[in-house]
Amino acid sequence: MKLVTSQQVVSAGGPAPPAGVFTLLTICPERGKAGRAHTARLAKQGFGGSLTENWRPELHHQNPASLIMMKAGEDEGGAGGRLGFSKQQDSDATQGKPLSKLSSTPVKGDWTKVSCPCCESEQVEPLVLVKLGAQVGPETKRWLIRLIGAPQKDGGAGLLAHPGEDARGSIIVVSAPRCTLLRATEELGLCKVYHTGEMEAFSYNDRDNFRNSNNMEAFLTLAEREYIVKYELEGLRAQKDLKIPGLPDKYTLQNRDNIWQKLCSARVVVDMCPLHNPEKLKQLKEAWYLGNHLSQPLDAVNEYFGSSVAFYFSFLDFYTWSLLPPAVLGLSIVYFSGDVQKEMVESVSKSPLPDIQDDSGLVVSGHMIQAVFSMLWSTVVMELWKRRSATLSYRWGTLQLAERFAEPRPSFHGNLGVNPVTGRVEPLFSEWQRDLRMLLVSVPVVGLSMGLVVLGMMCFYWGEAQVKQLHKDWDSYLSQTLLYIPSVLHIVYTNMLGNVYRTVAQSLTEFENHREESAYENHLTAKVLVFTFFNNFAVLFHIAFYKQDVPLLRKRLASLLIVTQLVNQVTEVVIPFLVDRFISAPQRNEKENDPQEDKFRNQRALPPFPGLFAEYIELLVQFGYLSLFSCVFPLTAVLLLLNNMTEIRSDAYKICKLFRKPFYPPVANMGVWQIAFEVLSFVSVVSNCWLLLLSSHIQVWGQENGLSGANLLLVAVIIEHVLFLVKFIIAVVIPDEPYWIRKKREHIEYASMQALRQMTLEVRES
Amino acid sequence: MKLVTSQQVVSAGGPAPPAGVFTLLTICPERGKAGRAHTARLAKQGFGGSLTENWRPELHHQNPASLIMMKAGEDEGGAGGRLGFSKQQDSDATQGKPLSKLSSTPVKGDWTKVSCPCCESEQVEPLVLVKLGAQVGPETKRWLIRLIGAPQKDGGAGLLAHPGEDARGSIIVVSAPRCTLLRATEELGLCKVYHTGEMEAFSYNDRDNFRNSNNMEAFLTLAEREYIVKYELEGLRAQKDLKIPGLPDKYTLQNRDNIWQKLCSARVVVDMCPLHNPEKLKQLKEAWYLGNHLSQPLDAVNEYFGSSVAFYFSFLDFYTWSLLPPAVLGLSIVYFSGDVQKEMVESVSKSPLPDIQDDSGLVVSGHMIQAVFSMLWSTVVMELWKRRSATLSYRWGTLQLAERFAEPRPSFHGNLGVNPVTGRVEPLFSEWQRDLRMLLVSVPVVGLSMGLVVLGMMCFYWGEAQVKQLHKDWDSYLSQTLLYIPSVLHIVYTNMLGNVYRTVAQSLTEFENHREESAYENHLTAKVLVFTFFNNFAVLFHIAFYKQDVPLLRKRLASLLIVTQLVNQVTEVVIPFLVDRFISAPQRNEKENDPQEDKFRNQRALPPFPGLFAEYIELLVQFGYLSLFSCVFPLTAVLLLLNNMTEIRSDAYKICKLFRKPFYPPVANMGVWQIAFEVLSFVSVVSNCWLLLLSSHIQVWGQENGLSGANLLLVAVIIEHVLFLVKFIIAVVIPDEPYWIRKKREHIEYASMQALRQMTLEVRES
Repeated sequence: MKLVTSQQVVSAGGPAPPAGVFTLLTICPERGKAGRAHTARLAKQGFGGSLTENWRPELHHQNPASLIMMKAGEDEGGAGGRLGFSKQQDSDATQGKPLSKLSSTPVKGDWTKVSCPCCESEQVEPLVLVKLGAQVGPETKRWLIRLIGAPQKDGGAGLLAHPGEDARGSIIVVSAPRCTLLRATEELGLCKVYHTGEMEAFSYNDRDNFRNSNNMEAFLTLAEREYIVKYELEGLRAQKDLKIPGLPDKYTLQNRDNIWQKLCSARVVVDMCPLHNPEKLKQLKEAWYLGNHLSQPLDAVNEYFGSSVAFYFSFLDFYTWSLLPPAVLGLSIVYFSGDVQKEMVESVSKSPLPDIQDDSGLVVSGHMIQAVFSMLWSTVVMELWKRRSATLSYRWGTLQLAERFAEPRPSFHGNLGVNPVTGRVEPLFSEWQRDLRMLLVSVPVVGLSMGLVVLGMMCFYWGEAQVKQLHKDWDSYLSQTLLYIPSVLHIVYTNMLGNVYRTVAQSLTEFENHREESAYENHLTAKVLVFTFFNNFAVLFHIAFYKQDVPLLRKRLASLLIVTQLVNQVTEVVIPFLVDRFISAPQRNEKENDPQEDKFRNQRALPPFPGLFAEYIELLVQFGYLSLFSCVFPLTAVLLLLNNMTEIRSDAYKICKLFRKPFYPPVANMGVWQIAFEVLSFVSVVSNCWLLLLSSHIQVWGQENGLSGANLLLVAVIIEHVLFLVKFIIAVVIPDEPYWIRKKREHIEYASMQALRQMTLEVRES
Repeated sequence: MKLVTSQQVVSAGGPAPPAGVFTLLTICPERGKAGRAHTARLAKQGFGGSLTENWRPELHHQNPASLIMMKAGEDEGGAGGRLGFSKQQDSDATQGKPLSKLSSTPVKGDWTKVSCPCCESEQVEPLVLVKLGAQVGPETKRWLIRLIGAPQKDGGAGLLAHPGEDARGSIIVVSAPRCTLLRATEELGLCKVYHTGEMEAFSYNDRDNFRNSNNMEAFLTLAEREYIVKYELEGLRAQKDLKIPGLPDKYTLQNRDNIWQKLCSARVVVDMCPLHNPEKLKQLKEAWYLGNHLSQPLDAVNEYFGSSVAFYFSFLDFYTWSLLPPAVLGLSIVYFSGDVQKEMVESVSKSPLPDIQDDSGLVVSGHMIQAVFSMLWSTVVMELWKRRSATLSYRWGTLQLAERFAEPRPSFHGNLGVNPVTGRVEPLFSEWQRDLRMLLVSVPVVGLSMGLVVLGMMCFYWGEAQVKQLHKDWDSYLSQTLLYIPSVLHIVYTNMLGNVYRTVAQSLTEFENHREESAYENHLTAKVLVFTFFNNFAVLFHIAFYKQDVPLLRKRLASLLIVTQLVNQVTEVVIPFLVDRFISAPQRNEKENDPQEDKFRNQRALPPFPGLFAEYIELLVQFGYLSLFSCVFPLTAVLLLLNNMTEIRSDAYKICKLFRKPFYPPVANMGVWQIAFEVLSFVSVVSNCWLLLLSSHIQVWGQENGLSGANLLLVAVIIEHVLFLVKFIIAVVIPDEPYWIRKKREHIEYASMQALRQMTLEVRES
């Protein structure tokens, strides 16, 4: 499958540095001259300049208003001096230049000054929109802006902040200077293209040897730039006790408190969202879901939405393609064995036809083939995906993320101590304590919830039986309606339980107090995942293993699949379309000469992106239907294939147009989802063997060949064990990463080993 | 369990540097004065000096004979000049000193001169004895000595060689100077104690910051020093085409040919063996098996025999201790359930007693407990062992062996190319080619051999039946004797097959052409292991799964265990004792004033050490009896415990006294044996569940509770799956290495990451 490399995409996005400007000007397709003409107009409006004027340090400090404002800020914000602002202001005083017409409007805000000269760039690209609470006073906003703008050594975020057109407005637009971006790139452990063309872990000291390290728009992906801004903001910690101007004393910060969390709890900051780049977005749409492409522009997705999203779509893509073989097999089986068609008819028409015994030999083989194939297929697919995933993460430079060595996640708490690994002073939290919490709290709670699911199901069956009885006794309309009550109640119960559980899972994972963001994410996902999956499959398992009723299972599966189809189509194509038509109207009728800020506000007006969990779980459940029960319903793969074809497009449409742009950290793989799929593919062996054993054909065949139930079961068990073995061997034999990637990794290990030896020597010498 | 650290042992070995001298003098216990007095005496004999005089560079070059010899050597040995000998000889010419009485004997050899001044030491410790072929001419021997003595940059081994008392004698004694040892230490990736007290990967540049880096006897273990000598010798490669003096032309070396292999094939070198250090050996014996200690001196073992041997004994020790719980359980079960006693009686008396049905409830529980316990026990033990193993390998400095980055093993062949990892020029061999060879050659051959084992077994059963029939027909003495023929034939067949297979496995593994020695070892072991194990258990499995005859299985197991006991006792205590008494007599009646060389010869006279495979497989088979079939014979653990108690002592005795000292490379763990034990512990679930199902009690219990065979089987299968799950979870939950070791590893990773960043910068700058 061909993929456009991110470099190509960037260059395709027009000459990169100007793109930054255009971003701020034009949503309209005909950019270029129009755009530039437009700049002047906006400038006259006294706004354009504020966000789009070329960066001229000597200009805005002449702006008396801003000077006054800053002084004021300094007086009010007790921490002003500490935040390296006084330094700024001194440096301002040294400069004397004539006023420019651009700084005519008195209360116009402007980008904060960069701390180091190397970062002064022609254009500033707005990356993140910070929404402030309505009641936030101007002094608080000014303090916050200075905080964001102050260099990191002074406890600031080392970013660029812009108060928006109105210094009193309730937004702050944030961007990042070169040095901050580069330092963060090293801290995150991202790999970038070295002058040799290889991907190498970025090193700030060695920056000049990395390609494009002067042009941030080509060097880092948009998603990375925006994530870094978030990373820096959320990492802000008070360097000493500090009162936030304009806030009651209860919000005073202690030393090392996380500032951003405090601001959020104080409702100073409502939320923040990354900003779209309409240029790139447009190209992405065209390459992705407008028109019909066979392959997705995964590199462009990674560039625009980040590797988490890119990995989801890569997997969706890979998985969809890998559905072809089972689909073909399923079709051929249905075609060749009339019997299965009968089953299809059964599954649609609710009444089982009389079991006509046609040539069972063929049919048995048909079922067998289907089952055995799907079992081995699932393992092979997952192994190949691992290899593909490794390739992608190398390509996207996330192969050696250094999260373990970076600062712990903001809400991680513990006693201050020296980290034995990095030697940095940071909160520490002992492993065994975490393990204990998981063992004694998380595990039981999760188990309990499972129990509740089972309980609900049992009540449902019991209620149904009762109601049926009732209906039989006094056959009335009332009882007729009563028939529906159990299922309705069950659905309500399940949903409520699901919602409650989700919040519980969150607080549990928070309580486990993981150091790394990824660990937190994985544990949370795992919890919800297990529950949701169980919730989805409890009924099917009950039918398959307890009731042992294959025809019913077949019906259920068929209806589930068809329902899933319809629901998917509705939720993911129709509703989005309607939403787009009517609700998200403001964005469409937005004129190109609207003030820039309104466009930002429109972006924020969209609903927040619900996250990838829903997408992944949908795939997992599909995969479950396919691998666990496929042998009873051969057309599963076909239906899923059709579904995913539309799925890809609709998901792309959703994330591009219907929701706020999400923040996603760079990741090296699918995380816990990988494991979930693998576990499922092993469980499938059990269920398939069991279902084969139950299938009427096998039973008949057994009777014909005079095999007792016990012997039949024994055969099934033996086959199951053999399959387990084979799957295991396949999983071991197929290496998880391609040979060339392993070599690269080993080379890096070797190089760092050598470097370390050299290093220790110098350290001693010096 | 308390362990002596290797440092302690070293210091315990008398003042270390002198120890080197004493080594060469005294086997007799009363050393010290006697020893020193003795030096003089030997010197007068004109021998002592040759090996034990203090190192005086200016002395031996005055020896006219040696000068002549060297000149001669230079003329004959075409490669003489190349081997940096002429350089030596020039330096000799510059020195003029009076003759010493020590160099009186004309044809006396002496230690070759060290190439770098820093390595000149007072004493030279003989480490390795190289045995030459009988027909090797003096010029070849001289050439070889110069080769060994020449510095590595000139294509030599950079070691110290001594021709023995007689320059024409058929031995060469080899030692190693400091620099060679240190460089090899870095190349092998051994960790040593840094001045901070931490273990750190040794770096030659940084040598002065490592403790004892000036005193090789304290810095490296004896085993490491000896292994390094072997490593250097076997790594010798011709730097250009080269004729070996005194050998026919067919032995001419091509460029990059491995010299040592060529010499072995030319029978110039018969073999080499590391030399004992009687001092340390004596202490080791005392701490190990003379007298009764509860714990073994593992660090001393590591110091003397190397980590491979030390790991074996650590595991033996760990495993023996871990046998206590099942032993206790087994005893209590036997004690509390009279039924099992009945079984015991059955298993001893060949006739099965009538099945008296006593309170089955208790008995069932007894069997159940035994089985479930042993299944979970095995996993827990293996997980805990992994942790212990990690701790040991950290303690012994083998945690980060850099074999991947070192030179490939001597017999590794391939087209010369640049190694993508290290950038060194060396033979390369593509992975997929190796995989292909394994898949298409090794796997089928191994499978075939298994088939042959099964075939043999079937023939055996068939023959037995035939013979029985025959015996029944004409009941005569002839037929009486005939009865034994099948088993005899089967035993012969099995042994022959075993021997053939061993050689086949070797050539197969050689054919697979592995790059690292450890990979070669592991693949060879795996092959032989699978076969041997299968060979051992085929019959039992046949009885358990095919014949499904539990009483017979019980008898077999009992007899096997008891036989094993006896065989062990005989082979490992009695025979060794006899051997020691009569055959290895020469060593005992060796006088302290025998010439040193004779003592070396005596060491070589011992049979070579058979290797650890036999020891490990014995443990594995034990472990198999225990974990696979324990539930039918509860006393297994008790018998094994008793056996291992003596096993430890007798193994120690064997390796110390009865065999030549073996070379063993430093290793980080048990290698493939680890996996073998783990696999076994998973297979045990299947067999135990099956045996429980078969056991008469369960069957009766099933009938009583009206469970059909199918349902009973179903229950068993469900239990099996649950146990699999539990074992799997246990294995995942218990981390494979202790927390503190993980932290150390991560710290090293972090440090080298930082170092690499620093490094790349400097490389650019320079």
